[in-house]
Amino acid sequence: MADKRFYQQSSPLFLEQLAKIGEAELRHPLPSGLSPESLIYDIGTLEEATSRQVAVLHNMKYLKAFTKSKAGACVVSPEAVAKAPCTMALLVSNHPYRAYALMAAKLYSKKARQPLISKSAYIDSTAKIGMNCTIEEGVVLASHVEVGNNTCIQANTVIESGVLIGHNCGIGANVTISHSLIGDNVVILPGARIGQAGFGFAMDEKGHVPVPQVGRVIIGNKVEIGANTTIDRGSVGDTIIGEGSRIDNLVQIAHNVELGRGCVIVAQVGIAGSSKLEEHVIAAGQAGISGHLHIGKRAKIAAQSGLMKNVKESEIVAGCPAVPVTMWHRQNVVLARLACPKKKKIEST
Amino acid sequence: MADKRFYQQSSPLFLEQLAKIGEAELRHPLPSGLSPESLIYDIGTLEEATSRQVAVLHNMKYLKAFTKSKAGACVVSPEAVAKAPCTMALLVSNHPYRAYALMAAKLYSKKARQPLISKSAYIDSTAKIGMNCTIEEGVVLASHVEVGNNTCIQANTVIESGVLIGHNCGIGANVTISHSLIGDNVVILPGARIGQAGFGFAMDEKGHVPVPQVGRVIIGNKVEIGANTTIDRGSVGDTIIGEGSRIDNLVQIAHNVELGRGCVIVAQVGIAGSSKLEEHVIAAGQAGISGHLHIGKRAKIAAQSGLMKNVKESEIVAGCPAVPVTMWHRQNVVLARLACPKKKKIEST
Amino acid sequence: MADKRFYQQSSPLFLEQLAKIGEAELRHPLPSGLSPESLIYDIGTLEEATSRQVAVLHNMKYLKAFTKSKAGACVVSPEAVAKAPCTMALLVSNHPYRAYALMAAKLYSKKARQPLISKSAYIDSTAKIGMNCTIEEGVVLASHVEVGNNTCIQANTVIESGVLIGHNCGIGANVTISHSLIGDNVVILPGARIGQAGFGFAMDEKGHVPVPQVGRVIIGNKVEIGANTTIDRGSVGDTIIGEGSRIDNLVQIAHNVELGRGCVIVAQVGIAGSSKLEEHVIAAGQAGISGHLHIGKRAKIAAQSGLMKNVKESEIVAGCPAVPVTMWHRQNVVLARLACPKKKKIEST
Repeated sequence: MADKRFYQQSSPLFLEQLAKIGEAELRHPLPSGLSPESLIYDIGTLEEATSRQVAVLHNMKYLKAFTKSKAGACVVSPEAVAKAPCTMALLVSNHPYRAYALMAAKLYSKKARQPLISKSAYIDSTAKIGMNCTIEEGVVLASHVEVGNNTCIQANTVIESGVLIGHNCGIGANVTISHSLIGDNVVILPGARIGQAGFGFAMDEKGHVPVPQVGRVIIGNKVEIGANTTIDRGSVGDTIIGEGSRIDNLVQIAHNVELGRGCVIVAQVGIAGSSKLEEHVIAAGQAGISGHLHIGKRAKIAAQSGLMKNVKESEIVAGCPAVPVTMWHRQNVVLARLACPKKKKIEST
Repeated sequence: MADKRFYQQSSPLFLEQLAKIGEAELRHPLPSGLSPESLIYDIGTLEEATSRQVAVLHNMKYLKAFTKSKAGACVVSPEAVAKAPCTMALLVSNHPYRAYALMAAKLYSKKARQPLISKSAYIDSTAKIGMNCTIEEGVVLASHVEVGNNTCIQANTVIESGVLIGHNCGIGANVTISHSLIGDNVVILPGARIGQAGFGFAMDEKGHVPVPQVGRVIIGNKVEIGANTTIDRGSVGDTIIGEGSRIDNLVQIAHNVELGRGCVIVAQVGIAGSSKLEEHVIAAGQAGISGHLHIGKRAKIAAQSGLMKNVKESEIVAGCPAVPVTMWHRQNVVLARLACPKKKKIEST
Repeated sequence: MADKRFYQQSSPLFLEQLAKIGEAELRHPLPSGLSPESLIYDIGTLEEATSRQVAVLHNMKYLKAFTKSKAGACVVSPEAVAKAPCTMALLVSNHPYRAYALMAAKLYSKKARQPLISKSAYIDSTAKIGMNCTIEEGVVLASHVEVGNNTCIQANTVIESGVLIGHNCGIGANVTISHSLIGDNVVILPGARIGQAGFGFAMDEKGHVPVPQVGRVIIGNKVEIGANTTIDRGSVGDTIIGEGSRIDNLVQIAHNVELGRGCVIVAQVGIAGSSKLEEHVIAAGQAGISGHLHIGKRAKIAAQSGLMKNVKESEIVAGCPAVPVTMWHRQNVVLARLACPKKKKIEST
């Protein structure tokens, strides 16, 4: 499936190996012609996968495609088993997308890069680089930068003075990082800007007065940061991204924001200064969060919503200004009814 | 009009030449003192154009400026002819902005660049570069990259392994491209990020599990992509930008999105994973489109609207959640009436 | 407080010096043990500042933290004086954040950079560089670029032909600038894109026809532009950013937009083509402003609002479509009441 120009597959896997890797159950009896030792070579979509590939049904929107799929194997939830085509081996899991993720990662395990420090990189004499690192062309590592082992920094990225980067990190091309301490296994996609001064000044009609921004950005282990995302350093104190949080492209995170562990911040979200998100908060695309707010654990913030108040643990909010999501749905229903000409008659009776 | 520091004009053109280039009609009789051979040297705004320049009236908001304009010539629709100042030559077209675009392009035809491969560019030994290309300072062309003829890649841009770029392309500075196949006559503005991994993972409180992203980005001929826009590669399968589509700045296009031919995507729009836009869809600024949706041909999505459902061919939608635009207008009217104190009295009677 | 990896403090200051710098009043009597010559070494947050540090109370949300703060000194408004802890020296000002900004700037005055032109920068033979400039690694200064005195351009930034940059500017890393005239004391953060072609074309189903973009970007003195922000050059005529305006990260400013003096544009705002903002307009995060609008002096545009009409001087608007903010609040109240089940009963009686 994957273009050989760009990807190299690992060895094929037995169905029973896949099941084990994905912590899934290989459902018996298997379709005729298949055995636990049948080989799977690749991943594929429900629509295009062949008998040698594994697909996943992780969204019931694609149930129809599933029933017609020619995939040799498919990861499914228990409820979908009955609808499967009879030619398909089933890898059953209560968390099919997670199971699939584990399998796919094994079929496309990253090839080890040949470590290499490009001669065209500019590395200050006081910078320290760990073992097995790749530092590509045009990279700048300024004074006192420290980079852990097995970390790769791609071309034309600029790491400014004093920044610490942990082990096993992947920093994309054309990235800028300053005033930051970055953990292990962190992935930063191209064009991200981390550690620049926040938007801090006292407004004054005679000329706004900038406030020195003398904090840092602290990024926990296993964080992923999207392309062209911006994370400003703290004003006084730090901007903190908790371990395992995943941030999509074009997100704005202002000074002194704190994200707990495992947060998910979708593309184009903006979080204003000093707001604190507890662990496992999900903010969907284009949502905006005002400054100085507190968002409780596991709260969910719908796409495009605008938060002006604190949100409690596990609460789901939507709309602008954001309200509990059930309230938002009722507002939409009421508004639709009032605006509908037919209903207006009823209203006027 | 244009600053000679930055622009070089072509030769002036006769009024009759301009009309022909713009597929417009030079309206007779001409103002006294003008002839079909009168020369036009430049473009200008309605407010500032002189008698040697051509302007355009493409938005009736500027009708007043038009009536006072000293432009020697102006491109207008037939309806505006009667309001023209008597000193102005009229180039009449049913598509005045298109006509003006064609004329302006002739007055400012791009000067041929002197092809040049900078010595400070890093070009892998396996990369192939066509005829008459410009590869500026600090550009990185990694292994197996192929670049067509007459293509210009500006400074500090990074093209990662295996990427194909067509003929006559203009790739701006500080761009990053990976895992992509790019057609001919494509323009990519500075800072765009194309082909990085999408936001794909299985959520898990014990640690989100990333899904390998093993697809590509396919960009058709004559596409234009704005500054700092991000286009993620497919997860499995491809992200596709149809021929002639134009994407503005700071747009987010997620993995496996498909755009048909001639789509227009205005600044800061976000399109979530796997949504499919048919040809000639227009999405206005800051609109958000949820994942897995289908948007029919020629549909129009208003600025800031939030799409949560499919949209039919030629439908116009607005609001969040998006509804047909007429419904949105009615909602706004109803809401304004309900919120207006005077009307409240009426309501309560 | 600040991490010595990244920041170097200036000398400590006497309380009476701080008061003078911040144009504040050192309130007497001072707490026992303190005198006008007591030394302040650093800034700190209300929560963490020690007896040798100065904090600020600039948002009444933090009044509780203030009453418990162990800061040796604090900048406060007159109203907060009575609530101060008895150990704290008070620096009283009607503009406490401004006063604090001035003090903090003195405690962290920028150390003079050692001017340096990197050998790996590419500087065209026709480019001119003023005195005491820093041009870092990988920077490209193309033909006829001119840079004023004391200006610093950070690594891998690309300045295209003919651009003028004034004195005392700080241009971050990985920035791209073309077709622009930039004043003095301008700060541009990493990844900003300034001067690229705007989104201008005549729509045509047979193929959109691009309109040549032959204007410039003019940036006044003391402007600050955020990370990954995009400012397109004028189509014909200029895009103008007025003196002292401050633009946050990921903002989109389209061709021919004009900002007056001292405007404040918060993150992720989008301003469409040819709109004009008079001086001291504030646009809060994620707001969208349609094209060809006029926004009067000192108008305030709430976060996420969508402007479709002109806004008068000093008007405050919110919502999408934007309405006067009091109307927006009433709309929200009405909608909440209609959508609330309990209130429905009342409504129906």
